[in-house]
Amino acid sequence: MPVSNQYVYDLDRQHVFHSWSTQGNLNPLVIAGGRGCELWDYDGKHYLDFSSQLVNTNIGHQHPKVIEAIKAQADTLVTIAPATANLMRGEAAKRILAHAPEGFSKVFFTNAGADANENAIRMARLFTGRDKILSAYRSYHGSTGAAIVATGDPRRVPNEYARGHVHFFNPYLYRTEFHATNEEEECERALQHLHRVIECEGPGAIAAILLESIPGTAGILVPPKGYMEGVRALADQYGILLIFDEVMAGFGRTGKWLALDNFGAKPDLITFAKGVNSGYVPAGGVMISKPICDYFDTHFFPGGLTYSGHPLAMAAIVATLDAMAEERIVDNARQIGQEVLAPGLTKLAEKYPLIGEARGIGLFWALEFVSDTKAKTPLAGPIVAEMKSALIQRGLLTFTVENRLHVVPPCIVTAAQVGDALAILDEVIRVFSEKYAGR
Amino acid sequence: MPVSNQYVYDLDRQHVFHSWSTQGNLNPLVIAGGRGCELWDYDGKHYLDFSSQLVNTNIGHQHPKVIEAIKAQADTLVTIAPATANLMRGEAAKRILAHAPEGFSKVFFTNAGADANENAIRMARLFTGRDKILSAYRSYHGSTGAAIVATGDPRRVPNEYARGHVHFFNPYLYRTEFHATNEEEECERALQHLHRVIECEGPGAIAAILLESIPGTAGILVPPKGYMEGVRALADQYGILLIFDEVMAGFGRTGKWLALDNFGAKPDLITFAKGVNSGYVPAGGVMISKPICDYFDTHFFPGGLTYSGHPLAMAAIVATLDAMAEERIVDNARQIGQEVLAPGLTKLAEKYPLIGEARGIGLFWALEFVSDTKAKTPLAGPIVAEMKSALIQRGLLTFTVENRLHVVPPCIVTAAQVGDALAILDEVIRVFSEKYAGR
Repeated sequence: MPVSNQYVYDLDRQHVFHSWSTQGNLNPLVIAGGRGCELWDYDGKHYLDFSSQLVNTNIGHQHPKVIEAIKAQADTLVTIAPATANLMRGEAAKRILAHAPEGFSKVFFTNAGADANENAIRMARLFTGRDKILSAYRSYHGSTGAAIVATGDPRRVPNEYARGHVHFFNPYLYRTEFHATNEEEECERALQHLHRVIECEGPGAIAAILLESIPGTAGILVPPKGYMEGVRALADQYGILLIFDEVMAGFGRTGKWLALDNFGAKPDLITFAKGVNSGYVPAGGVMISKPICDYFDTHFFPGGLTYSGHPLAMAAIVATLDAMAEERIVDNARQIGQEVLAPGLTKLAEKYPLIGEARGIGLFWALEFVSDTKAKTPLAGPIVAEMKSALIQRGLLTFTVENRLHVVPPCIVTAAQVGDALAILDEVIRVFSEKYAGR
Repeated sequence: MPVSNQYVYDLDRQHVFHSWSTQGNLNPLVIAGGRGCELWDYDGKHYLDFSSQLVNTNIGHQHPKVIEAIKAQADTLVTIAPATANLMRGEAAKRILAHAPEGFSKVFFTNAGADANENAIRMARLFTGRDKILSAYRSYHGSTGAAIVATGDPRRVPNEYARGHVHFFNPYLYRTEFHATNEEEECERALQHLHRVIECEGPGAIAAILLESIPGTAGILVPPKGYMEGVRALADQYGILLIFDEVMAGFGRTGKWLALDNFGAKPDLITFAKGVNSGYVPAGGVMISKPICDYFDTHFFPGGLTYSGHPLAMAAIVATLDAMAEERIVDNARQIGQEVLAPGLTKLAEKYPLIGEARGIGLFWALEFVSDTKAKTPLAGPIVAEMKSALIQRGLLTFTVENRLHVVPPCIVTAAQVGDALAILDEVIRVFSEKYAGR
C-alpha cells in the first residue's frame, strides 16, 4: 500500500466528513503512530502531544499494558450484548467505583461522554419525578439531542426530556458576570445567582443541577473555594440532584483521581469517559449513588445502547486504571503540574501581556490571550489558529478553543518534556506578542 | 483469578447497571467466549447465537481476520483525534461508500447508531433550513436526547432540534392502521396517510423523513412493494430530504449489502452502525450524498464527538467489509435465508396457530405470537419471555421484543445450524402451543 502523508491526506479529504468544521477549509494533520507523549507522521516528523488529542489520552499514546490488554480481550471475546454478564465489564465497574466517593454502588456504561450525560439526566428526571435540568452557560456536555425523540416506539414517551433545560452563569472571575473583584466575592455572588435562578424556575420543578467538576472546553474554570459545596447545599435545600460531569476533568487530569476530589462536595451521579481508558476504545458511563440504584431496582430504566459495557472497551478500562495505579500516574500529574507546568505557564503570563490569564490545576491549564490587557479583549480566533499552526510547525500540539490554548499533556509527561513545551510556547508567544500585543 | 459463571454473575449484579431494565429483576446470561455462530460459558455450555447479540454480529463471533486487524491497529495507533487524517479512517470511508448508492461522497463517523441518526437529523435541518422531522411510530432510532441542549456553550444554539418531531404510521399489513386487506392497499393507504401528515404539518416546515429501510426492533416490517418509492416521490414533491436508517438492516442482514438495495428508492442520507464492523469496536456513521457534502464545504457543521473515526473501530470496519466480500457472506445470507430459514419459519407458522405471522427477508425474520389467531391478540410478554428462557435452556439465543421472537443469526450461518435452530424452535413452540394457543 502506498502509504505516505499525501496518500492519507488525500484519502481523508476525499471521503471523510469532519466534526465541528466547514469542510472546505480543512487541513488535517496526518499522524502515523505514537508512543507516550509523542506522535509522528509518515515522513518521520515528530510532535510533542500537549493536547492529549481531545484531552483524553491521559495515559499517553500506545501504553504497552493497555495495548496488550486490548489484544488479549480481542482474542477472548471482542463483543457481547449488554444484557449478558461479562467478566471485564464487572471488573471495570468495580475499579471505577473504587475511585468514586463513598456511597456509589453501580456503573452504567455508555459509548462516550455525551450519552453518559444523557443517561444521568434520564436517571435524575425519573428518580425525582421532576422535569428541569440546570446547567452552566460555560459548559460542554456532548452533542446529541434527538434520537429518542425521533424514535417512534413507546420508549420515546418517558424520554422526551430535551426540554426544560435552563442555563445559569458559573463563576469565572477573569470575566465575572457578577461584578466581583476577588474569588470570594465571585463565589458568593455566583451562588446567590444560582439560588435566584432556582427560585425563579421553581425548585419543585428542578430534577438536577449538571456541572462539570471543572469546566473544560469552556476554559478550564477551576471553581473558587466553597462554590461546589455551596451548590451542594442549595441542591440539598430543594431536593435537587447534583450531577458532576467528569468526562474531561476526571481520571488523573487534575492530579487527583477525580476532579471532584479537589472539593468538599459529593454529587449524586458522576459521568465519565475519555481518561477512564484514555479513549483507547470508545467508552463512557455514569457512576450511580446507592439511593438512585435502589430506586431502579424496582422501577424500569428506559434507556440503553448496543455497546454498553463493550468487552474491548472494558478491558482497556481495567488495564488503564491498573497501570495508572501501579505507575503512580496520578501522582505524576500532580507533581509535574505543581512543580513544573504551573510555575512555567505563570511565568509566561507574567512575561507576555498577550496572555490575559494563565489558570488551571494539575495538568489541566489554559492560556487566555487578549489583544488589550486592560479591556481583556479576546485575541481574535484566526490569530489563535495561526499561533496553533506555528506551534505545530515547531512540533507542539495543543488544544485550541476561541482565544485560548489549553495545555493538557498526558499525565505521564516528564519535567523535561514540559520544559521543551514551555520553550516552544515562549518562542511562539514572543513572536505573536511582538505582532499583536496591545492592539 | 477465580473465574467461574458464579464469579462473573456476582460481579455483574454487584456493580453493573443494565440497559432497558428493572435492575432488581435481572438474571444475565454469563458468556465466556465465542466463535462463528456459537457462544459458551465458563462451564462449557454452548449456545447457538440466533440473536447476533443485538443484531450486530453479522460476521459471527471472533472472525479471525477482523480480530487480527484489530490487534494490528492496536499495535500501530489505537486512538487519534478526529481532526487529524488517519489511514484506516480514510480506508473505512472509501469501502463504505463503495456499497452506497451512486452519488454518495463522504462519511461522518460516530460511535453508534443513535448518534448517527442525531447527525443525519442535524445535517438535514441545516441543509434545508427547515425544522420538523417525520418518522414512524413503529421505529427505533436510538436513545439519546438532550446532551447538546444541556450544553451551555454557543454550539447549543444551532442544535436545539429535539422539537418538531412528528410521527406517522408506517405500513404493517398484519396490524393495519388503514383497514387494508392486501399489500397493495396497505401501501397505497400508508402513502396517502403520509401525504396527509405532510400537508397538515406544512411541507415547507419539514426537513426530513427518517425511516428505517426495514423497521427492525419494531417488528421486522418489510415495506410493501412501491412504498419506499412512494415516500421518495413525496419527499421530492416537497423538497424534503429522505434519511434511511440502516443501523440494524444494513451490511448483509437482508441478503444485500444494504437493505435499501431491495427497493428502488435512493435516500439523501444513510445512517449505519452494527453490521458495518459487527460491533467488534463501537462505531456508526452517516453516508452523505454530494449536494449535502457540497453545502457543508462552505457552511459550518455544528456537531462532533471525541471518538469520530476511531482508528481501532475503523480497522475493524475495513477488515469486516473486506472479509464479507472475500468470503461472499452477503450471498450466504441471501441464499441461506431464501432456501432454509424462510421456508423453515413459514412451515412453523403454518403448523402452529400460536404464530400469527412469520415475516422477513434474508436472515432478518420475526415470529409474531398471538393467543388468538383471529383476534390477533398479542401473546403476553411474560409468556414470550418464558419461551425465550426455554430456548436458552436448549441452547438457542434469539432476540425478543414484546410478543415476538426475532430470528437473526449471523450472516455466516450454515444450513445445518439453521436446521438445528428450527428443530429447537419447533420443540419449544410445540410445548407453548399446547399451553397457550387459542386462549
